[in-house]
Amino acid sequence: MEELGPFRVNSDGKTLSINNYAWNNVANILFLESPAGVGFSYSNTTSDYDKSGDKRTAEDSYTFLINWLERFPQYKSRDFYITGESYAGHYAPELAYTILENNKISNNTVINLRGVAIGNAYVDKISNDIGGYAYYWSHALISDETYVAIQSNCNLSSKVVSAKCMKAMNDASGESGDIDGYNIYAPLCHSSSSSSRFGDAIRDFDPCSDNYVYAYLNSLDVQKALHANVTGLPYDWESCSNFLPWTDEPDTVLPTIKQLISSGISFWLYSGDVDGVVPITSTRYSIKMLGLPVKNSWRPWYINSEVGGYVEEYDGLTLATIRGAGHEVPSYQPERALTMISSFLEGKLPPSS
Amino acid sequence: MEELGPFRVNSDGKTLSINNYAWNNVANILFLESPAGVGFSYSNTTSDYDKSGDKRTAEDSYTFLINWLERFPQYKSRDFYITGESYAGHYAPELAYTILENNKISNNTVINLRGVAIGNAYVDKISNDIGGYAYYWSHALISDETYVAIQSNCNLSSKVVSAKCMKAMNDASGESGDIDGYNIYAPLCHSSSSSSRFGDAIRDFDPCSDNYVYAYLNSLDVQKALHANVTGLPYDWESCSNFLPWTDEPDTVLPTIKQLISSGISFWLYSGDVDGVVPITSTRYSIKMLGLPVKNSWRPWYINSEVGGYVEEYDGLTLATIRGAGHEVPSYQPERALTMISSFLEGKLPPSS
Repeated sequence: MEELGPFRVNSDGKTLSINNYAWNNVANILFLESPAGVGFSYSNTTSDYDKSGDKRTAEDSYTFLINWLERFPQYKSRDFYITGESYAGHYAPELAYTILENNKISNNTVINLRGVAIGNAYVDKISNDIGGYAYYWSHALISDETYVAIQSNCNLSSKVVSAKCMKAMNDASGESGDIDGYNIYAPLCHSSSSSSRFGDAIRDFDPCSDNYVYAYLNSLDVQKALHANVTGLPYDWESCSNFLPWTDEPDTVLPTIKQLISSGISFWLYSGDVDGVVPITSTRYSIKMLGLPVKNSWRPWYINSEVGGYVEEYDGLTLATIRGAGHEVPSYQPERALTMISSFLEGKLPPSS
Repeated sequence: MEELGPFRVNSDGKTLSINNYAWNNVANILFLESPAGVGFSYSNTTSDYDKSGDKRTAEDSYTFLINWLERFPQYKSRDFYITGESYAGHYAPELAYTILENNKISNNTVINLRGVAIGNAYVDKISNDIGGYAYYWSHALISDETYVAIQSNCNLSSKVVSAKCMKAMNDASGESGDIDGYNIYAPLCHSSSSSSRFGDAIRDFDPCSDNYVYAYLNSLDVQKALHANVTGLPYDWESCSNFLPWTDEPDTVLPTIKQLISSGISFWLYSGDVDGVVPITSTRYSIKMLGLPVKNSWRPWYINSEVGGYVEEYDGLTLATIRGAGHEVPSYQPERALTMISSFLEGKLPPSS
């Protein structure tokens, strides 16, 4: 409701605006709040939450999909794509891999997985750390001195963090000050901020939209209309869950991505270029680690006579950036994001002019 | 008229809006179109234009100032500051140095030079080149392959450019596509663009404002009212001149800056952080070459509960960034720019909260 969905919540937390750049303009979309314990997804068995992790998420998501296709069998023959962002850098490849493995088992429902596209994807811890500090330094968010201290004192590929490294990392956090790391140039949500500052509810990003969605989805009327929260969850709807313990989180999913690539599905990493949390520099380092040959060289892509971003096609993987977008790409650049995802679905690179 | 002046030209090219963030809120300002041949500044002796260069510009600007003070002697005792941007990274230190040298000569009018503040200052060619490519790569405007090719094939400290280096540099230009290098995230001026897209004439940057100022200053009525172009120049008013040959352009003015620092005047470099032409990375490399001890560590500065940028005070030099501003800092972030320059004039660092 803040990104690619058909509606955005207005500042009253009650009414909606149509998002003309919703991704369901170009595909049928299933939104899955995942894993159980996030949003309206839940388990009847409380102890399930103790088993939360990457593996469980992939298995549960696969089970959901299979059951959903049994319930709506008219969609079984359709092409199927997975998208997500951020930690979906883990979820999406892991689910894709689970689907492909299960497709091999006879009598299983075959899911026609055609591609995976992940935005500002967290796929490799070391790349993310190294790229993150490089991004912060080059975007003038931290000092030369602290950047040098991190480079000298931190072995980012080691689990052990020295005291000097810890100090340098803490210095880095302090030096960047009170900004939104998910879009380093966006304004913050101030209680005093008024939505009248924002001309167009969709085109102009409103930093308080988290609050509107929170209010909307926690309204009983809305929950009733959505057939959501019928069990009366003992907590509010939240976009992320804070209470789930995590049993497994591999430092890298690059091996899984390699396997997906070799399976022949379309694999895209897209990236809003003003995100400091999983920045474009980190994504570039991650791709470099895959060592893929270049198929189509880096070039700008265009929408409305503006550079919408850049694209480079590797053998088996495509990198597409979205210019001026933060971590939640369609929130900040809805039109550019729709152009990018449309190209992905059409199996071609975004427009060259 | 596009940046820090009291008025902005509206999209009709005829009428004006008041700029509430004009720098003359905090100082009396003399605008000098410099050198002769730029804007309305001219010479009666055409051959003067053949002698245009850094040296001539400093001398002429000094002569102008002295004559102006003779004409308005009530200002002789005032504190005097120099600001500028871009190539003023040459002009401003050179003029400051000329002033300080002339102040030493007995019977000369003493100009009470207190400080110099230069925005996105071009001060050192090598730093600028190295920082420029680093900026383009880290901001995802060029490919990994081209960045590596530049690093491998270009000796940026040499005058000699190899064929391989030339190719890599050309690749870099092509790869970034049709963007405004002076603000890598700003929209371009399209003939079809309408000013109605822009909510607030001052707060919201209008990419076509160059055109409005051009139309305004080339109107005969305006020229008459300003007592400008009384000789009937054989060319239009332009913000930059394309016809001036240049006899001297040192690759670096860091030695001049060192001398200014040792003279005890206040010296600030400020930088809009989304400029790709004289990017913040280049300014950081230039400052590094001065080898100054840190006096006050890097920290964010604030205006309206938002990070307005970052500041680091070195012994003799202050670096201040302006968040979300392009090359022409007050065009893009007028309020943040005014906060920054006010602090400079007050001899203190920008607000820490």
